[in-house]
Amino acid sequence: MDKTLLPTLLLTVALPAVVLPAFAADPAPRPTQRSSADILAQSPADDWRGLDAENTVLMELQTRDGVGQVLIELAPRFAPRHAANIRQLARGGYYDGLAVVRVQDNFVTQWGDPNGENEKLAKPLGKAEAKLPAEFSVSLKGLALTRLPDVDGWAPQTGFVEGFPVAADPKNDRAWLAHCYGMVGAGRGNAVDSSNGSELYAVIGHAPRGLDLNITVVGRVLKGIELLSSLPRGGPNMGFYDKPEQRPTIQRARLLADMPQSERPALQVLRTDSKTWGALLDARRWRSGWFVHSPGHIELCSASVPTRPTPPVQ
Amino acid sequence: MDKTLLPTLLLTVALPAVVLPAFAADPAPRPTQRSSADILAQSPADDWRGLDAENTVLMELQTRDGVGQVLIELAPRFAPRHAANIRQLARGGYYDGLAVVRVQDNFVTQWGDPNGENEKLAKPLGKAEAKLPAEFSVSLKGLALTRLPDVDGWAPQTGFVEGFPVAADPKNDRAWLAHCYGMVGAGRGNAVDSSNGSELYAVIGHAPRGLDLNITVVGRVLKGIELLSSLPRGGPNMGFYDKPEQRPTIQRARLLADMPQSERPALQVLRTDSKTWGALLDARRWRSGWFVHSPGHIELCSASVPTRPTPPVQ
Repeated sequence: MDKTLLPTLLLTVALPAVVLPAFAADPAPRPTQRSSADILAQSPADDWRGLDAENTVLMELQTRDGVGQVLIELAPRFAPRHAANIRQLARGGYYDGLAVVRVQDNFVTQWGDPNGENEKLAKPLGKAEAKLPAEFSVSLKGLALTRLPDVDGWAPQTGFVEGFPVAADPKNDRAWLAHCYGMVGAGRGNAVDSSNGSELYAVIGHAPRGLDLNITVVGRVLKGIELLSSLPRGGPNMGFYDKPEQRPTIQRARLLADMPQSERPALQVLRTDSKTWGALLDARRWRSGWFVHSPGHIELCSASVPTRPTPPVQ
Repeated sequence: MDKTLLPTLLLTVALPAVVLPAFAADPAPRPTQRSSADILAQSPADDWRGLDAENTVLMELQTRDGVGQVLIELAPRFAPRHAANIRQLARGGYYDGLAVVRVQDNFVTQWGDPNGENEKLAKPLGKAEAKLPAEFSVSLKGLALTRLPDVDGWAPQTGFVEGFPVAADPKNDRAWLAHCYGMVGAGRGNAVDSSNGSELYAVIGHAPRGLDLNITVVGRVLKGIELLSSLPRGGPNMGFYDKPEQRPTIQRARLLADMPQSERPALQVLRTDSKTWGALLDARRWRSGWFVHSPGHIELCSASVPTRPTPPVQ
C-alpha cells in the first residue's frame, strides 16, 4: 500500500524571488524549477556566514537522553544591554548548574535559577547587572530590513535582519524581534525593567506573537530547539515543574569566544539578505511535486533560517 | 529577586466581543474587565456541549512515561468519508498495536502501520475502505462559520465551525479545516486520493498552513496533544524513527460509542458559536495586567478551544 504522507518542512520547489500579492485567490502551483535542497546545494559561499563567537552561547543540557547541546545566537542589535549581560553571566559561570524550570505545551520552555526568588538561596549574578532597561523595540530607521511582501496581521511590516524575524511599524519608527518558534526571550516580572537575562525562555509552539512588544527578546536557538521542545511538560501551574527532580539540569553554558577553537561548533548560517534565502521563501510560497495547491503566501514565522556544517576550505 | 516571567496562554483580561480592525496601530491596553479564568468560570452551561460519542476516538499511547490518553474529535462535516472510515478502523481494532512512526520537530507526529507499505506484512483494513476520495474542502454555502474579523494572509476568511478552525474562500465557495496546532490529518502519497485514515498525523508546531487544501484534515486533538508533542524527535529523514524500538506503541484506539459509559472521558467542549468563546478571543486581542501592549489582533491558530470536566448535575 502506498501511504506515505507528508513532505518535510523544506522539501519543495521554487521560483527565483518575486514580489507576490498578499493573497492570491486559489493559486495554482507554478512550474517546477529548483527544489529547496537544490537551492541550498547551489548556493554561493558568500550567502553563508560564520558564527559570531562573542554573541553565541553553547548550552549543555542534561536530559534523560544524555547531554545535548543548544546553540543560542544573541541579538545585540535589538537588545544590546541584555546581550551584554547574558555574555557576562555566561562568562561568570552563572548558568552552570541551573535548570529548566518550566515547559508549557505549545508555548515556552524556560530556564534559570530555581531559587531565583529566594534572596538567601539565589545564585549571585557576579559581575552582571541585576537591573536593566526594557529593550522591547528599536528604531526602524537605518535598520537593514529584508522585507517580506506577505501580509501580516500583527504588524504593518515584517522581514529579516541578520537572520532574525523582525516586525516593524514605520509610522512609529519601531522595529522588534517577533516571537517565532525557537526565539529566546528574557523572563520578567510585572515591571517592564525586571528582566536581566538570568531567566530565559524559548518558544516551542505556535508563534505567540501577542508577546511581541511586551518582553525583551534576546536571540534565537540556532541548533538544538528539538531538545527544548521535547522535554516532558510541566504541571497545570503554567507548565512549571512541580518537583525539583523533574528539572533538566544545565550542565554549563559558555560563550563560543571563551571556548577553544576546536570545541566550537563548526557551523554556518544562511544570510537572510541573500538571494538563496529569498529563493527558499519562494519555494514555500509556490509549491509543486506532492503539493496540488500553493498558498502564494508565507508568514514571518513560516520558515527558520538554515544552518550547515562549515564546508572544508578548498 | 522578582523574576517570574511569562503569563500562561490563557491568563488575561477581556472585553465583550466587538469587531476589531484588522490592524490597530500601536493599540493601548483596554481597561481591565474580566480575566479569561473569570470568563470561563462565569460561562452559562449552554455555552458548553458534551462529546459526540460516534465521532470521538480515545487513543491509548504507550510512552516511556507510561500509558497516556489522546482524545481525538473527528470532523464528519468536513471529511465525511474519512470520518466514517476511521470509525470503521477503530471499531475493527485496526489501530491497536500500531505505532508512532514519525516525529518531526515543529511539524508533525505521525502514526500508523510501520509495515503499511509492505503488502505481505501490512495489517488488513478489515471492513474499512482502502480507497477514498480526497476531502480537502467543502462548500462554504450553508456552513455556520463564526467569523473572525482579524486579517489572515492565507485565506480571505477565517473562523470556527463546531470547534474547528476553518478558512474559507467565498469567491470559489470553498471552506476547509486549517492546519493549526493539534489538528489531525490523514497521510497520503502522491495521489490526492491515496489517504484512507489508516495513517494519521497531528500538528505539533507552528501552524503549517501551507498544507491546507493539500491533504484531508479529519479532526483535532481535544486532549493529550502534549503526549504527541513531547515524544523524542525522529531522525533526519523527515523525522521518521530509524529503529523499530524507538516507536511508541498505540495500545488501542476506541470510539467512545463502543466504550462503556463509565470509561468514557467526562468532558465538555466550549461552543465556538457562544459569547464565551468570543469573549475569550477578545481577551487575547486586548490584554492588561502583565501586558503593556495589546496586539488588537489574533489569528485563527492563536487559541485552542477549551474543554472542562463535565460538571456534576445540580
